[in-house]
Amino acid sequence: MSKVAVYPGSFDPVTYGHLDIIKRSVELFDQVIVAILNNTAKKSLFTVNERYEMLEKVTSDLPKIQVDIFSGLLVDYMEKISAFIIIKGLRAISDFEHEFQMALMNKKLNSKVETLFMMTNEKYLYLSSSSVKEIAMSNGTTIDFVPPYVRDKLSEKLNQ
Amino acid sequence: MSKVAVYPGSFDPVTYGHLDIIKRSVELFDQVIVAILNNTAKKSLFTVNERYEMLEKVTSDLPKIQVDIFSGLLVDYMEKISAFIIIKGLRAISDFEHEFQMALMNKKLNSKVETLFMMTNEKYLYLSSSSVKEIAMSNGTTIDFVPPYVRDKLSEKLNQ
Amino acid sequence: MSKVAVYPGSFDPVTYGHLDIIKRSVELFDQVIVAILNNTAKKSLFTVNERYEMLEKVTSDLPKIQVDIFSGLLVDYMEKISAFIIIKGLRAISDFEHEFQMALMNKKLNSKVETLFMMTNEKYLYLSSSSVKEIAMSNGTTIDFVPPYVRDKLSEKLNQ
Amino acid sequence: MSKVAVYPGSFDPVTYGHLDIIKRSVELFDQVIVAILNNTAKKSLFTVNERYEMLEKVTSDLPKIQVDIFSGLLVDYMEKISAFIIIKGLRAISDFEHEFQMALMNKKLNSKVETLFMMTNEKYLYLSSSSVKEIAMSNGTTIDFVPPYVRDKLSEKLNQ
Amino acid sequence: MSKVAVYPGSFDPVTYGHLDIIKRSVELFDQVIVAILNNTAKKSLFTVNERYEMLEKVTSDLPKIQVDIFSGLLVDYMEKISAFIIIKGLRAISDFEHEFQMALMNKKLNSKVETLFMMTNEKYLYLSSSSVKEIAMSNGTTIDFVPPYVRDKLSEKLNQ
Amino acid sequence: MSKVAVYPGSFDPVTYGHLDIIKRSVELFDQVIVAILNNTAKKSLFTVNERYEMLEKVTSDLPKIQVDIFSGLLVDYMEKISAFIIIKGLRAISDFEHEFQMALMNKKLNSKVETLFMMTNEKYLYLSSSSVKEIAMSNGTTIDFVPPYVRDKLSEKLNQ
Repeated sequence: MSKVAVYPGSFDPVTYGHLDIIKRSVELFDQVIVAILNNTAKKSLFTVNERYEMLEKVTSDLPKIQVDIFSGLLVDYMEKISAFIIIKGLRAISDFEHEFQMALMNKKLNSKVETLFMMTNEKYLYLSSSSVKEIAMSNGTTIDFVPPYVRDKLSEKLNQ
Repeated sequence: MSKVAVYPGSFDPVTYGHLDIIKRSVELFDQVIVAILNNTAKKSLFTVNERYEMLEKVTSDLPKIQVDIFSGLLVDYMEKISAFIIIKGLRAISDFEHEFQMALMNKKLNSKVETLFMMTNEKYLYLSSSSVKEIAMSNGTTIDFVPPYVRDKLSEKLNQ
Repeated sequence: MSKVAVYPGSFDPVTYGHLDIIKRSVELFDQVIVAILNNTAKKSLFTVNERYEMLEKVTSDLPKIQVDIFSGLLVDYMEKISAFIIIKGLRAISDFEHEFQMALMNKKLNSKVETLFMMTNEKYLYLSSSSVKEIAMSNGTTIDFVPPYVRDKLSEKLNQ
Repeated sequence: MSKVAVYPGSFDPVTYGHLDIIKRSVELFDQVIVAILNNTAKKSLFTVNERYEMLEKVTSDLPKIQVDIFSGLLVDYMEKISAFIIIKGLRAISDFEHEFQMALMNKKLNSKVETLFMMTNEKYLYLSSSSVKEIAMSNGTTIDFVPPYVRDKLSEKLNQ
Repeated sequence: MSKVAVYPGSFDPVTYGHLDIIKRSVELFDQVIVAILNNTAKKSLFTVNERYEMLEKVTSDLPKIQVDIFSGLLVDYMEKISAFIIIKGLRAISDFEHEFQMALMNKKLNSKVETLFMMTNEKYLYLSSSSVKEIAMSNGTTIDFVPPYVRDKLSEKLNQ
Repeated sequence: MSKVAVYPGSFDPVTYGHLDIIKRSVELFDQVIVAILNNTAKKSLFTVNERYEMLEKVTSDLPKIQVDIFSGLLVDYMEKISAFIIIKGLRAISDFEHEFQMALMNKKLNSKVETLFMMTNEKYLYLSSSSVKEIAMSNGTTIDFVPPYVRDKLSEKLNQ
């Protein structure tokens, strides 16, 4: 049976930290679906379609990657596409706490679903989509944090 | 002297996690007052009266329980009703940190007040009012998380 | 029904931090049993009898306190004396983690047993029996950390 | 070479906890600049000018202190004024996590910048600008938390 | 390419918590090697051969499981058997911290090696080999914590 | 007044993580004293004199560094040499907890003493003297973790 893993997130925007997890996941599973949560309740800088386009672009050279958009409960989305492995990156204790509760809740909602955690590369421990946006808005350089294509999109968006 | 304990919270809505703490508190004290904070600054799904009604309903078979509503500082409310024991449930480190600072602050504001912490039952470690609301809004089932009466009220509220 | 609480520990030796918890517990329960664990596997500075004597001495002016010694599982000791409330003081996250697992385990071993946590007074956050022993061995003063009687016993013991 | 340290924050309003860090910093460096972040995205109770005035007032008797306002990235502000030491106070694990990521990010943005952490005095562990505002809004007394001048400003502001 | 995962540990003795991780791992990988660390520097209750025999016995009905013994560095053992996935169970923050540093260190020692973390089932959050040994030594029942075969071996060992 | 900072530790042996803190401290203070704790109660791989010699060697090219040995309480040693600033590196939450209590205790023992914390470089987050010793004993390479001189001493020591 082929193993499909889902890497869910907001990706607003995708960072080198996310890409590191994506590349490492590809080594472990037959297919990795990067699943963008379309959460209308949470304000985002980029629309879900812009985030989809950026992810498509920056993962285009990676095999076995598929980008998708979902709304509603993650476990329902996974049931629908018959995927049962969730991939999450952990950076810190506060991530751990939150993800721990999410993993227990998801297991409760669908006992077939398994969450696997990968440690964030130490180079990206400080990195989050929020900090990237903050730096870009303060005219700092994001060259070490996001791929060139995303950097361009950030400039476009912030100059609108 | 009879021992009265106050279990404060938002209860938006009450979950099986809260009920577990309430039932265990009843074993320890002569009276337990479930005190709903009427915080006009914080947006809630249910009005404070709806939350009062739900709590009344789901604790109606428990002896020694009284539901009440307060606003302002918890320590002032407690002074007014001559109760000096606060009950709090802990689920995780982040709860612990926040509650620790609250307990020190409350002791500073009124040195007679004592905060007692109970560990959340391991079955409800993942459970919070927020996650229940999120699941209900995404059309997931909350059958394992809240009593039937609350489930009905959630449906009503979300279909308005 | 009268409420009996057990405050278990090594008390090697008892510190002002322990005494603070003991005094606050007395306000909450009808009787508080300070229960010294006689753990032959763990090296201690004071014998269990010396620790008993020190606790008796420093709690002699407190009503409703009884000092006792137990060995084996805490839950078995509690069953034997028909006490079902455990009191523990929390100083820090690492305490919290350990105590959390202990509380879950004890509830598993005997579901009637309830663990209540009190936050350590901020004045004693840094205080532990180990640090007191370390300071005494390095000829530092322990005047702020343990009662005079314990300070004398520490001197005696370390000059043997 | 003289050592200049920057103590950045929102100071909305300044508390005795902040003042404790400021006084201790003065002992360590040749000059300490208290730098108020002018963050237009974050709602504050006091305007940045009101916060400046309060800090000026309550630090007027301290030598070597200068109050300033900055916007944009902290590292850019520091480069501009040729200061390379950031002072931060830590109260708790959650502070630590957040500050740890900030310190790594700032070092990445400017490798010359060094962040030094001081532990908050145990007396102020529970204290934050938010809790002070909450207490003042609930008509509690803030006499132990902020200097008299700030207390007056809080009253004025909340009675507007 | 077939995916081989290694689940390393002391297993002194194997608990239901370990077995839960083993069973869930089997769903994710083509083969799972339970690798017992033969650490002569650390005192154990059971010899490495006894631990091997217990693991063989309690996993005998599981497909795709192999039990093995290794000494020296885990990454060297993995290189030798051409396995590059480490499985670890997380119970708590303190586990997380330690495992985080181990994972970073192992990645440094061999960049091909990937560590995947699974959250311990909430039913076994309180469970560790040490607590099982402590309970058995205090004549408590371990019926909920270890398989019957291990329980028998514990009795034998402790009655020697 | 010139600022003298003390960087205390066991340094058994000194690692690149320690050296990173030492180099960054030199930028901040007029003199940095690397103070080796001579703790006869704690087993070490290297004698205190060997540790002194290694530290002398690997810091010989750094200005303003002095290596020293102390026993007893750190605050007493500092009083004796008239130094009032302690430097500590933080890697993780568990470090933070322990160091937090130590800093509060040291301030209690001598209120003039101030502890400053620096975040460990992200490259060395996983690094400790213990892990270096473990790797060396398992015949792994420590080339990325300790200076060449220390590596030689480790080989010598382990081949004795």
